[in-house]
This record gives sequence, C-alpha cells and structure tokens, in this order.
Amino acid sequence: MSGTAARGDAVRRPALREILGPVPAWGTPGTHNAITDVPGVRVGHVSVSAEGPHCTGVTAILPHGGDLFREKLPAAATVINGYGKMTGLAQIAELGTLETPILLTNTLAVGSAWDACVGWMLSRFDRDEDPIRSINPVVAECNDGRLAEIRERSVTAEHVSRALDDAADGPVAQGCVGAGTGMVAFGWKSGVGTASREVILDAGRFVVGALALPNLGTPEQLVIRGVPVGRRLPRPPSLDGEEGSIVVVVATDLPCSHRQLGRISRRAAVGIARTGGTGDGTSGEFAVAFGTANRLPPMQAAMLTERRLDDRAGTLDPVLRAVADATEEAILSALFTAVTTLGREGCVATALPIARVIACLEDPVLGSSRRA
Amino acid sequence: MSGTAARGDAVRRPALREILGPVPAWGTPGTHNAITDVPGVRVGHVSVSAEGPHCTGVTAILPHGGDLFREKLPAAATVINGYGKMTGLAQIAELGTLETPILLTNTLAVGSAWDACVGWMLSRFDRDEDPIRSINPVVAECNDGRLAEIRERSVTAEHVSRALDDAADGPVAQGCVGAGTGMVAFGWKSGVGTASREVILDAGRFVVGALALPNLGTPEQLVIRGVPVGRRLPRPPSLDGEEGSIVVVVATDLPCSHRQLGRISRRAAVGIARTGGTGDGTSGEFAVAFGTANRLPPMQAAMLTERRLDDRAGTLDPVLRAVADATEEAILSALFTAVTTLGREGCVATALPIARVIACLEDPVLGSSRRA
Amino acid sequence: MSGTAARGDAVRRPALREILGPVPAWGTPGTHNAITDVPGVRVGHVSVSAEGPHCTGVTAILPHGGDLFREKLPAAATVINGYGKMTGLAQIAELGTLETPILLTNTLAVGSAWDACVGWMLSRFDRDEDPIRSINPVVAECNDGRLAEIRERSVTAEHVSRALDDAADGPVAQGCVGAGTGMVAFGWKSGVGTASREVILDAGRFVVGALALPNLGTPEQLVIRGVPVGRRLPRPPSLDGEEGSIVVVVATDLPCSHRQLGRISRRAAVGIARTGGTGDGTSGEFAVAFGTANRLPPMQAAMLTERRLDDRAGTLDPVLRAVADATEEAILSALFTAVTTLGREGCVATALPIARVIACLEDPVLGSSRRA
Amino acid sequence: MSGTAARGDAVRRPALREILGPVPAWGTPGTHNAITDVPGVRVGHVSVSAEGPHCTGVTAILPHGGDLFREKLPAAATVINGYGKMTGLAQIAELGTLETPILLTNTLAVGSAWDACVGWMLSRFDRDEDPIRSINPVVAECNDGRLAEIRERSVTAEHVSRALDDAADGPVAQGCVGAGTGMVAFGWKSGVGTASREVILDAGRFVVGALALPNLGTPEQLVIRGVPVGRRLPRPPSLDGEEGSIVVVVATDLPCSHRQLGRISRRAAVGIARTGGTGDGTSGEFAVAFGTANRLPPMQAAMLTERRLDDRAGTLDPVLRAVADATEEAILSALFTAVTTLGREGCVATALPIARVIACLEDPVLGSSRRA
Repeated sequence: MSGTAARGDAVRRPALREILGPVPAWGTPGTHNAITDVPGVRVGHVSVSAEGPHCTGVTAILPHGGDLFREKLPAAATVINGYGKMTGLAQIAELGTLETPILLTNTLAVGSAWDACVGWMLSRFDRDEDPIRSINPVVAECNDGRLAEIRERSVTAEHVSRALDDAADGPVAQGCVGAGTGMVAFGWKSGVGTASREVILDAGRFVVGALALPNLGTPEQLVIRGVPVGRRLPRPPSLDGEEGSIVVVVATDLPCSHRQLGRISRRAAVGIARTGGTGDGTSGEFAVAFGTANRLPPMQAAMLTERRLDDRAGTLDPVLRAVADATEEAILSALFTAVTTLGREGCVATALPIARVIACLEDPVLGSSRRA
Repeated sequence: MSGTAARGDAVRRPALREILGPVPAWGTPGTHNAITDVPGVRVGHVSVSAEGPHCTGVTAILPHGGDLFREKLPAAATVINGYGKMTGLAQIAELGTLETPILLTNTLAVGSAWDACVGWMLSRFDRDEDPIRSINPVVAECNDGRLAEIRERSVTAEHVSRALDDAADGPVAQGCVGAGTGMVAFGWKSGVGTASREVILDAGRFVVGALALPNLGTPEQLVIRGVPVGRRLPRPPSLDGEEGSIVVVVATDLPCSHRQLGRISRRAAVGIARTGGTGDGTSGEFAVAFGTANRLPPMQAAMLTERRLDDRAGTLDPVLRAVADATEEAILSALFTAVTTLGREGCVATALPIARVIACLEDPVLGSSRRA
Repeated sequence: MSGTAARGDAVRRPALREILGPVPAWGTPGTHNAITDVPGVRVGHVSVSAEGPHCTGVTAILPHGGDLFREKLPAAATVINGYGKMTGLAQIAELGTLETPILLTNTLAVGSAWDACVGWMLSRFDRDEDPIRSINPVVAECNDGRLAEIRERSVTAEHVSRALDDAADGPVAQGCVGAGTGMVAFGWKSGVGTASREVILDAGRFVVGALALPNLGTPEQLVIRGVPVGRRLPRPPSLDGEEGSIVVVVATDLPCSHRQLGRISRRAAVGIARTGGTGDGTSGEFAVAFGTANRLPPMQAAMLTERRLDDRAGTLDPVLRAVADATEEAILSALFTAVTTLGREGCVATALPIARVIACLEDPVLGSSRRA
Repeated sequence: MSGTAARGDAVRRPALREILGPVPAWGTPGTHNAITDVPGVRVGHVSVSAEGPHCTGVTAILPHGGDLFREKLPAAATVINGYGKMTGLAQIAELGTLETPILLTNTLAVGSAWDACVGWMLSRFDRDEDPIRSINPVVAECNDGRLAEIRERSVTAEHVSRALDDAADGPVAQGCVGAGTGMVAFGWKSGVGTASREVILDAGRFVVGALALPNLGTPEQLVIRGVPVGRRLPRPPSLDGEEGSIVVVVATDLPCSHRQLGRISRRAAVGIARTGGTGDGTSGEFAVAFGTANRLPPMQAAMLTERRLDDRAGTLDPVLRAVADATEEAILSALFTAVTTLGREGCVATALPIARVIACLEDPVLGSSRRA
C-alpha cells in the first residue's frame, strides 16, 4: 500500500453549489466554502488506496499552524448517537481544550491513528526544557468495512503523519479522499465534505466551518434541501453490513468558551437530520467544535483574560444556524463529490446519480422551492 | 379565572392528515393518531382561559391508570437545548423510572404545577400503611408570555387537579387547549399536537406515541414535509419577545429499558429539526420517554425479571424512526389545529393560513413529493 | 404556623472548632468560617416550627445583593447521586449562570418554594421597561419526613419570602434552623452547617465557602476527622424511614468559568465521603457552585471580557482541596450545632452526644492524629 | 525489551490484610480478596521491564472466558475527573455493554494497546460466517512518566497480547506488575491493587471485586483507615512532574442493568476519597463496572429476558458500600505490595515504609480505631 496524498485528485463532478446555484436561505459561504475559511485551520488527506481491499484513508484537521500542545484552543464535543469510538472526549469535557489535530479514519484504525498522532506531536512539539508526557489525541471513525477489508488494518503511522504534514489551508479536496475513501451514505458512495458560512454579528464578521464524514443512512432516507430524493431515485446496489455513522468537525473564529462550543457542536445534529439521518441504532454520530479566537498562551500566568460572546439572549443564533446549514451542506457535498468506487471482493459503491438528482431538484416548482 | 376543561372545544379546522392524505413515508398511525394509542396512556387539558391575559393552561399526560407511585414505569429524558425548566430529570436518570404524571404548563407555573402534582398524588395514592414521603413530579414548560400575562401566574392547583382528573384515553384535543393555549411557533399560533405510529418488529406489533408542545422557531424557519413553507407564506404579525421552546413526550408499549428509552427520547430532536427548528439559543428543548410494558410491581421482591428488546443490531431502528416521524407530525398538527388567539393587551397570534399552506403543498409537483 | 426567622436562636453547644481547636491540615477559615465569607453572599433561614409536626423550614442563599436576574453569576452543578429533586440544573448547564437565590427546603416543598422564589424575584426585580418572563429558580431539598409531617406541606410563600428578605452576610446560624430544622444525619439530629477556607494562589488570596444540609448516612457510617466515631458511639434511637440526602452549596470569589465551577462543585463529593457518606441508594446528593467574581453586566454588549484562572496545570488544586475541606467541616458543623428535637407523633432525633465524641477525639493519641 | 509475564514475581512484603488483620467494618472479602473472586473474571499482567527507562507495562482484565464480542456483558463507566484518556466510553453509555477486555497501561500507550486489543480480538473471535468489523476496546491509562521514559512508547502489541493470553483467574499479582510497574501514589511507589467483598442480599450471596491502578495524590494526602498517615511519615524523595490519576475496575456477579452499573461505578469515588484523594486538577480519575450475570446471548432473538435487582429502595446499598470498601482496600493494597523501584535516569520511587505505617496503625488506641 503506497498511500496517496490526495488533495484534488477526485474525478471531477459538478459540485453541489454548481447545481443548486446561490441558495439565499442557506447564507453566505466563505471564500472556499470549506472549514479552512476559518483562519488557521488546515486539512490533510491520505487515501491508503483509492480502490480495492485497502480502500480507506485518514483525514487530519489541524486547528492552527502553531504548537498545538502549548497553544491549546477551547473545544467541546457532543455524542449524538454513541455507537462509535471517538477518543479524547473526557479530557475535552474536563479541561475544555483541544491540544492535538483531529483525525478521522476507519473504525479499526483508531488505535494506530492515536498512536501515530502521539508520535507526530512528539516529533513536532517536544522540547528538552519542557517535555510532553501526556497527549490527548482526538480520533474519530466511521466504518468503511462495506468497501474496505477493514480487518487488515491498513492505515499506518506513515499515512497518518503524511496527512498531518500535508495539511494545508485553502481549498479542501472532497469526496473519495482521506477518511472519505471508503464511506457510503444513504446507499450511495460518500466521502469527505465541507462547507462554511459567514456570520455577521454586532460584534463583527465571523466564519463557521464544518467538515463532515457521512457514512450513515438508508437509501430511502436521503433528503436534499427538503426533497425526499431518496424515495425517487433508483435503488442503489446494496452492500452488506449495517454499518453507519457520521463525524462532524466544526470550527469558528468567534471568541467563545468551552460551554458555548458545546452549544455549537450540538447543532451539527440539526444538519444531519435535514439530510434524512434519523440516528439509526447502529450509527455512531459525533460532533466536535473548536474556536480559534482564544488560543491559550503558553502556561505561565495564573490568570487569563478572554473575550467571548454574551449568549444570554439570542446573540448566538446566527452561529447556531450557520452550524446547521454548514453541516447540511458538508454532508451533501460529500455525496456530490464522491465517485463510484470499487472496493474489496468486487463490492461497488455507486456515485449519487447526479443527473437524476438534478431532475428532481431542477423541476420548475420543486427547484424553486429548493432555492427559497 | 374559571378554567375550562377543554377536550375538543377548539374551533374546527382541517387537520394535517386531511390535507396531506396518507403519507406512506411517514408510516402508519395508530387508531387515534395520538399518544393515547399506547394502551393506558391518558391526556387531560385545562385551559385557564382561551383568550386575554390568562391565555394559558396545563396539560397532563398520565402514563397509566393505576397507582403511578407504586407501579412505576421505566423512563428517560433528554435535554436537547437546556434553556428551560423541566423538573425531575436527575431522579429519572438515577432510578430510571417515572412515578408521576407528566405536566406541561407555562414557564412561571412550574412551581405551582409541581406542588399541585404532589397534592394530587397524595390525595390519590397515599396509604396509611405505606405513606408517601417523596415524590418526583415531572413538570415541563414553554413560555406563553407573548400572549399571556405570564407574571400573573394564573395556573392554580385546581386547574392542575382538574387536568389530572379529567385525563382520558381515546382521541386527544389538539391546538389551543391546555398548555397549548398560549403557544406560538414559527410566528404562528401553536398549541398541543400529537401523533402515533405502529411499529412492526419481529417480536410483534408495538405503538409509539408523541405529544408535542411547540413554541419555537422564527417564521422563515418553518418546514412542512420538506417544503420551506415559512419562506413562502406572508409574514405573520410579530409579537414581542424572543421566547422559544418545545417539549416532547414519547410513549411506547415496547418492552424497553431506561437506557433504551434514552435512545428513544433523543430521536425527538430529529422530528424537531425536520419542522425547521434549529435549536436557537433561547429555545429550551426537552424530551421525555416512558415505556408501559415493564410496569414495576409493588416493591417487594429483591429481583425483577424483565423483557426488553436486544438493540445491539438495528432492531430498534423502526422505533427510532417512528419517534422522529411522530414528533414531526405532532408539531405540525399543533400548528394546523391551533386557531387565531387574542392574548394580553390586544396581542394576537394568527393561525397558520392553511389555504396558503395547502397551495404550497397541493402544487402538483411539490405536493406529490410531499407524499413520497 | 408562625415561622421563626431564626438566626442564632439554636441552643448553644460547643462548636466543632472549639472542640477541635486549630486543625492545620484543614487550612485557614475565613472570618466567620461560613459561606458568607465570600463577599456578597447572604444567608437567610426561616424555621416553620422548631418542634412538632411542622418541624421544617427553608434556607436561602443569595449569591449577591444586587439584581440577581440581570447580573447573573457563573455557576455549575453536579449530581452526585440523583435520587433527589433539585430544580434548575438544565439551564445552569446550558447557560452556565445562576439568576436566582438558591433555596433549600424539604422534599415536598420544592414546588411551593419554586413558586415563591418566582414571586419574590418579580416583586424585587421586575421592571416596566424590561419585564421578566422567565426565571430559573434553583431549589434543592432533603427529606425531613422522619421528624416532620412532610405531607402537610407547611412551607408557605411567606416563609420563603421571609428567608429571602432576611438573608444577611456575617455569621450564619447553624444547626436546627431553616431547612436544617428537620434534618437527621448518621442517625443523629443534623441541620445546616457551613465553613470556609482561605486560598492563597499566585494570583492572590481568595475564599471558598460551603454550606451543607446533611440528611444522609447510617449511625455506623459517621467518621469525624478519620475516626470511625459512628462505630463507637451508643446507637441513637432509630427513626422510621430510609430517607437520606445532602445538598452542598459552594461559593468562591475566584474568577472562574462555568466549566471550572463544575470541577469545583464535583469536589463536594470528597468532603461527603470523608464524613462517612457512601452514597446509599436512597440518598439524593447534589452540589451547586457559583463564582462571584465575574458578575455578568446587564445584557447589552455582544462581547464580554472575563478573567479566569488558567487550570491546565495544578493551579486549581488549592481551590479543589478547599472545597473538600470546607464541605467536610460544614457537614460536621451541622451535626455539632444541632440539638435534640421533638418531631411529629413523639419522634425524637437526638443531638450528637458531644461529650462522647470528644472522648474519642481528645484521646491523647487519637486526638493528636485528628489535628495532624 | 523482553517483557515479563509477571504473576507473583513482586518482592514479598506483608500485605495489607496481614497488617490490619480482620477489619469487621470493611466486610468479608472473597476467596482471594481479588477481582477474580467474581466468577469468570481473569487478570493478566505484562511488565515491559521492572526497572529503568522501560519501567512500564500493561494489565488486562477479561470479564469472562468466552467469546467476549458475541457474549457481551452489561457495563457502565464514570468519569470522576476527566483529565485522562479512557477509550470506549461513548459506546458503553449508548449500548450499555462491554465487548472486549479492559486494558490498563501508560498514558502514551493507549493507542497501541487499543490497536493490539483489536488484533487480539480478531485473532480470537473473528469468524468467516460472521466477521467482526467494529470493536470497542476499553483502554485506560495512568501516567508513569515520572519513572518511565514514557515518550519511548515501549508497550508493544506483543506485550498486550501476552497479558491477554496469560490472564487467569485465582490469585492476582499486585504491586509493581503490569500497568502498575511505573505507578507512584501519594509520593510512594504504587502499583496494581485488588480486593473483593461478599455481599449478602435477600436474593442471595454475591461478590463485588475491584482492581485499582492508583497513581494519584501528594504525600501529605495519604490516609489509611482514617489515619492521616501521610502527615506523619517522613517525606518521600520527590519526583518531578505533577502527573496523577487512578483507574478503578469493578466487577460483580449481581444481576444488574447498565443503569445500576452506573450507580455502582460511581461509588469508586468514595473509596478514592477515603484514601486521601481529592481529585487534584491534573489527576484523571475513571471507573468502569461490569456485571457477569446477564451475559447477552449471541444476537438472534429480538427480545431478551433479564433478571435484575429492584433498586427503588435501599436494596443496592450493601453493593454500593462494598464498592467503596473494595476500592479503598485495592488502592491501599497497591501501595503495600509495591516495592522500591529504579526508573529512568536514576529516578527512584520508594516503597511505602511499612514499619513506620504499622507504628501508626498499631498504636494501641489508634490501631483499635482502625479495626472498628
């Protein structure tokens, strides 16, 4: 397995926004309509192999480009449906901080990604005068065992390190790359998707970004901008297994606290529900959110002074809605950018038939409602 | 304030199902399409006054008709968005049981409803040989202060007792009755709504019922069966205040445990999201679920033997989906059955303009997608 | 029932500190060794009746002397053992703030205290130009039904208002006053207890105060400064019922966030365990903590600037230890100050036999270990 | 690094029970006074190296000897102080089950232990006709970086597999073995400790077992059976670093549910507090409990029938107290059985000076109180 550092190598398909056009109800995306629109955030993907039994990979989200361990960020996570294996949750809840990249990979690769993350952190940030002896990697997973021979555990430390090293800001490759390589959602080939929203508050302009790894849902559940497309499309070839799950990573440059990031992370569930997800029993659904505005200084002063939004009234509403919107679009974008993929033992996951989807969405009446 | 025991006194409007007709994707409702389709469950409403400054009320859900204190039921609750005042949550989480009716009322009436519930329980179930000295009332609230002069606290113990005494099985009055009297959702007059679903499992046929008290959302957020109706309707006259919230009560006769009822209660959030709710910052959103199959026997034997579903695989999925569906329909039904209401100081909450809604929903293309 | 505003009317008994003398290991108490050593905090008690069937009461803790609703404080709560009925928890968790006094009373009086709290808040803080339409009272309870005829619900709105109006800073009456009137702990008469600790950090000198309402434990469980006194004392006359519980209120003037107050509130459990509490199944155990340093300004600016401790390293340790110590002392102080009490139907709860306790604690060897 | 399968190779020191003699207040231990007294439970240790830079290891607790994946057990976990890295918590909370062994190791070895656990599970339990594609390893850690060169990450898959393969019932090696190799608690060398209690209920005789990995506390905090021994002993040589933490594993053969195991796991905190732990800010404290009585059958039937205790009244109390007692003894036993250890770069962790401790505990007056 060589591992491909994939940033843009997906077969070109019309992206969601090209099909939908501007959607006023959905707000204004940032420059790249990606989580990287939040300044400092970087994303890296390594696909272990685009096809065949090792059709899997890893995606890394770096919250900033500095010393992640010593300049921690406020963060919070939410367990929407706990049948999954996200690591690091207890420490995030207790200390309210993120001190590593966030890694997404397949279900049985969590341990090796965790270990590789520790290795990468030590190689980057360990210092003689202040050695690191505890690290809290945040690793989340979806199960790509319908396509990949997941039990071979083909994600290595080298794959993980490469995803971390190659992480970059700017446009983000979507679809069948990185952790998205083996995803299947609503019966169709899925992958990684991302989106962002500008938020205008009295206090200024901020950005909310979401990156989703959708692997959930049955064919009939799929909903696109309210249209129950899943009930109108031909049924995709079925794959064995009832695996499901989704991970959503949310970033914002709004100054906010751990508690507020908890509120923010919980709105990912709204975006998931809008695409038809019902939280089936075997679907692990997790969201993690971090804020880049209050980077903790290197530990020294006993007291910190921090700015944050006052959220006693509805001041946080535009942000919460932006999380729902960006999550919804990120999920759909994962489906629109993914391509038909050949997995283990001849298993094929079929790309969403975009022409058929467009036929639904571009229907004069229906389509106009889509863009309301 | 006299208080009206309202069960069916709402002005007659075409109900949601009459407009939508059968909706295959939404599953099969029970006999009354109401939470009372779960055998044993009873609902009672008292409207303090249908109009004017005391435009408020109380709704009682009785989980069964026996000694609620000694024959407790398994139960669980979920805080979707915690800006609210539901009582009883800690004990439900610790002991996993419900031992009282569930009361819904206005925000500032929680204390008096709690106290009245205790009085009613003592008058009903207290016994010389086994006195009750601890009761855990479950009282939830939504804020009707946009219509009612909520600070006058006009819900009395007598209103609460009447709602409890009058609770009955069979059809449930919806709309502007009981706790629904002063509700406003998505800018339109709201109320109480209910719905139910049949669920066919290998182990048999079961029923899931939901009762919702929707008081959330802005006009542009309203979505009906995927159609963003809120963006097409004329804007309703605005009411001051940013109050929001929703309470959902879920019942089922499926044999399940506290943990499983936790999973069940969490799916109310999916139904809420489908109607356009985004969990705004000032919207308190809570769900509570109980199961009627494992009624605890009077305390005596040290060991209990209980049946429950094995939910390691997707066996619970039809139930989880039914919760989402029934919650969605219950919310919409509250809007469709509510009527224009005159509140305090000339405030008017306008009924959802059904003809305009139907125009959207009955559009040949759009309408058919609604029923997919 | 007249209700006695009791601040200092308990029969005089040697206080814990008079017996123990200085206890270096326990740190330095504040001026009054009371929760009121945290500047701004006020405590008020009303005993409904010191004896007989109405042997119950209410205790109010006011976090500051200003407009509690508009100048909220950061707060957090912990459910140690959830068999209890504390209100307000969900909103504290979601918004991270306290906006009312904290009320302690008997189990079946939670509703009336909640309602009375709303009434008092409205009478104090409601303003024409900015009406209050939602309040989140924090009411906790212990069960005094072994002494009081709890089902008569003799705590009225007038009792509650008086406790709130009379709340004062300075020395705090302990023992059989307010909510402590009917408490029984470890088989002996209990009551209200309080203690405080100075905490010296790099950032300055701060105070931690605790107020406890102990109603938990069996006679043999009682431990005083490590000595299993409960196993050496004569057995107290038994009272029927297995009621238990404890509420601990923690205050500090340290600048800290909701999350940090969560950590602080959780350490009350350490103090409880040191006195012999094991969290029996029927014992509801709750703690709530608030910080007075970051009083929220009246809502207006979108952004707040707040100071707080950086707790990534062990900087919070002195505070966490102070919470454990102050809670332990507050519990013991409740026992030492309570007096033998005649309750309903001739039930008598006997005061801790201090001479016998001293005999254990003043034993030359044992006593010295107590003061280590 | 060879790795030593250590089961009994610790230098012989007088065990806690030999010193204390029978302690009536502490209840009756099972046959081996170990977690393995719960039928079916197995423990295995591998010490990577007893001394020097690789002074670390891994301990495996197997809940039963069958197919752990298909015959899951009810389980629950508690985060007492979340500054730690325990994996598997979300799935345990959602599904209520344990499907793997529980592994204890050092902080930076969590990933490799997780990965090794997956490998071991697949090699043991994977079947052609029913392949495993998702596994939820439960790995907890304490930080042995004061003694070990933790950043070298010397725990390998082979070490983990050996601990799992060698796991056995019967007596359990304690002290400096397995994950205990590099532990330090209250300033003294610590290790692995275990204890058990018989519990007699109306429904029969049951066993509660605890295994602790104590790595927490400062020297002056140590308390042994109420005596503040830590304040009387000479101060141990200090080691750099403020690492702390403790993991407690609780097992019982009592038939109980996930919710009840949650209650059970929470009582580990009582045992920790009794030994002087105050939950310092940098101390990660976790407990996990499982029940062996309700082994889930291989998935097939939709409905399960399970027995469990009725815990509405105080029926669970003897079990909850046994958890506190067994946890307390397990922690002390880890200290009593550990030996002076030479770690990295000449760091030495000194064994608890038992003669000095006995001098405190055997003092005629003090000692008698210890055994009350």
